[in-house]
Amino acid sequence: MAETIPTTMTAIEITAPGGPLVLKPGERGVPAPKAGELLIKVRAAGVNRPDVLQRQGFYPPPAGASDIPGLEIAGDVVAVGEGVTRFRVGERVTALVAGGGYAQYCVVHETNALPIPAGYGFIEAAAIPETYFTVWHNVFERGGLQSGETFLVHGGSSGIGTTAIQLAKAFGATVITTAGSDEKCEACQKLGADRAINYRNEDFVEAIKEMTGGKGVNLTLDMVGGDYTERNYEAAALDGRIVQIAFLNGTKVTTDISKLMVKRLTHTGSTLRNRPVEFKAEIARELELKVWPLLIERRVAPVIDMIYPLHEAWRAHERIEDGHHIGKIVLDVS
Amino acid sequence: MAETIPTTMTAIEITAPGGPLVLKPGERGVPAPKAGELLIKVRAAGVNRPDVLQRQGFYPPPAGASDIPGLEIAGDVVAVGEGVTRFRVGERVTALVAGGGYAQYCVVHETNALPIPAGYGFIEAAAIPETYFTVWHNVFERGGLQSGETFLVHGGSSGIGTTAIQLAKAFGATVITTAGSDEKCEACQKLGADRAINYRNEDFVEAIKEMTGGKGVNLTLDMVGGDYTERNYEAAALDGRIVQIAFLNGTKVTTDISKLMVKRLTHTGSTLRNRPVEFKAEIARELELKVWPLLIERRVAPVIDMIYPLHEAWRAHERIEDGHHIGKIVLDVS
Repeated sequence: MAETIPTTMTAIEITAPGGPLVLKPGERGVPAPKAGELLIKVRAAGVNRPDVLQRQGFYPPPAGASDIPGLEIAGDVVAVGEGVTRFRVGERVTALVAGGGYAQYCVVHETNALPIPAGYGFIEAAAIPETYFTVWHNVFERGGLQSGETFLVHGGSSGIGTTAIQLAKAFGATVITTAGSDEKCEACQKLGADRAINYRNEDFVEAIKEMTGGKGVNLTLDMVGGDYTERNYEAAALDGRIVQIAFLNGTKVTTDISKLMVKRLTHTGSTLRNRPVEFKAEIARELELKVWPLLIERRVAPVIDMIYPLHEAWRAHERIEDGHHIGKIVLDVS
Repeated sequence: MAETIPTTMTAIEITAPGGPLVLKPGERGVPAPKAGELLIKVRAAGVNRPDVLQRQGFYPPPAGASDIPGLEIAGDVVAVGEGVTRFRVGERVTALVAGGGYAQYCVVHETNALPIPAGYGFIEAAAIPETYFTVWHNVFERGGLQSGETFLVHGGSSGIGTTAIQLAKAFGATVITTAGSDEKCEACQKLGADRAINYRNEDFVEAIKEMTGGKGVNLTLDMVGGDYTERNYEAAALDGRIVQIAFLNGTKVTTDISKLMVKRLTHTGSTLRNRPVEFKAEIARELELKVWPLLIERRVAPVIDMIYPLHEAWRAHERIEDGHHIGKIVLDVS
């Protein structure tokens, strides 16, 4: 498996804050793995909403992270840093990275990499980390979803949505989701959603009240914010939890906190990218233990919407921004 | 200790929704203790903000509760219902009730009563339950306050504030509070607050940032709401919690949920009155185990602001509404 590692590589650079076309292939030095790190020859890289925010100039990379976009990759280990124990050169891994994924090579701490699940190719594998780490932490750890509870995820056809529907269902929840077209709703139901609400035709608060006999949902995973926040409070059950992971409709929200108090709601949220390697390593361990077996059995699996070659990353961004995608968009770096 | 129990009693009635003067003594039947309940001859009754809201017509009593105001009492057990095991006629108790405290007699489930701590009279004992149950649940159980953490309580000179300052301090927190005059701030510091911010002169967010080296507070107990909500988010540390127990400045709040997400805040809240007897019984057990010893040692103690006779309940309401009180207002029912 020995392979000559070049000194330079092609990477997608954000040449200036702006629209998709600011993403341009450029030449960069191949990064060197530090202690505990793997150098991955990237075969595929997932595309995510935070990449779009970063491109627009609204989401600068955390200190120490690459300025190249890309939060998840799959590929071959081609070199290892000092003290690496788990992976060897030649192994196939998928990894969560804090940046640098849209490139031919990328480094990652070995604890933030996982073996590619048996039966998965690089494209599918690259579509796993960002949404699985995010959903696992926010739905099961932070949100404490229990079997038998009712779970609401907005944007059911998004990368996060498709992952959340499948995982919540696999762990015994009743799953409700919202999406913006009948086609998307149908896709969500095929993934296991008990009810998919087309928010263009139907008020989700009313639909949920009707469906739950007035009780509401126990946990909501929300990436919408804005006017949804108040409606999430209305749709929540007693002791309901709402976990915020983004705010597509804006960060300024107006709510009635008497609802939060009287229903004893918990509104919380988190970001993943800026967390330390050790934190992500804990999630990785949990995923390998509890979710990898489900991936291998195909009880859950990433949903692939479109694949673009690395140098057409701008097309991938157009696709994610136009909102017509169902599932994940992936860059092929082979 | 046998005592003749009359069939009727004086109780303070809310004759119509409105100002303090709608509170008038009236004649009511003495309630009969049901299974598991104690009949208490009330000697003193605490006055609380929810009583004011109830009088104004904004906070109807929960199903099954008396329409007479009053959420906490101290007095003598004069009769017991079927199956009562813990208390006997003649014992002195303090109790949390869902209503009916402003009266000569009141019933309560025995699990929601506690022995009056050694060394305490009825007036002080009646000033304990509402704020101690509320603070214990919201600060230590819901808010998870840990020794060594920084704790912010607004309204430090209120009944809730004076209790929260003392308990948080006794359990090892650094305590910051806000109050509306230098006199009140001084009182808070005497109770153990490490820092009392006069909110009329000083912005609490800035003061807290300065005091904590920019880190912010780990837990906030808030009864203000309105414009404080956004500022609570600003004053919070990473992973900070904000527990809402009232909303003196209003229930409509405008916040920036990106702060909630990026700082991984948890905003939650609760009400106590409408919770089942069993829930309050659990808090009572915890209090007896962990807080009664502190009360007996006088490491914590209720702060008494003013005492009024039962038939002058309207004056007690005037006092609590004018906001000049420091600590608890109690009705003497002897």
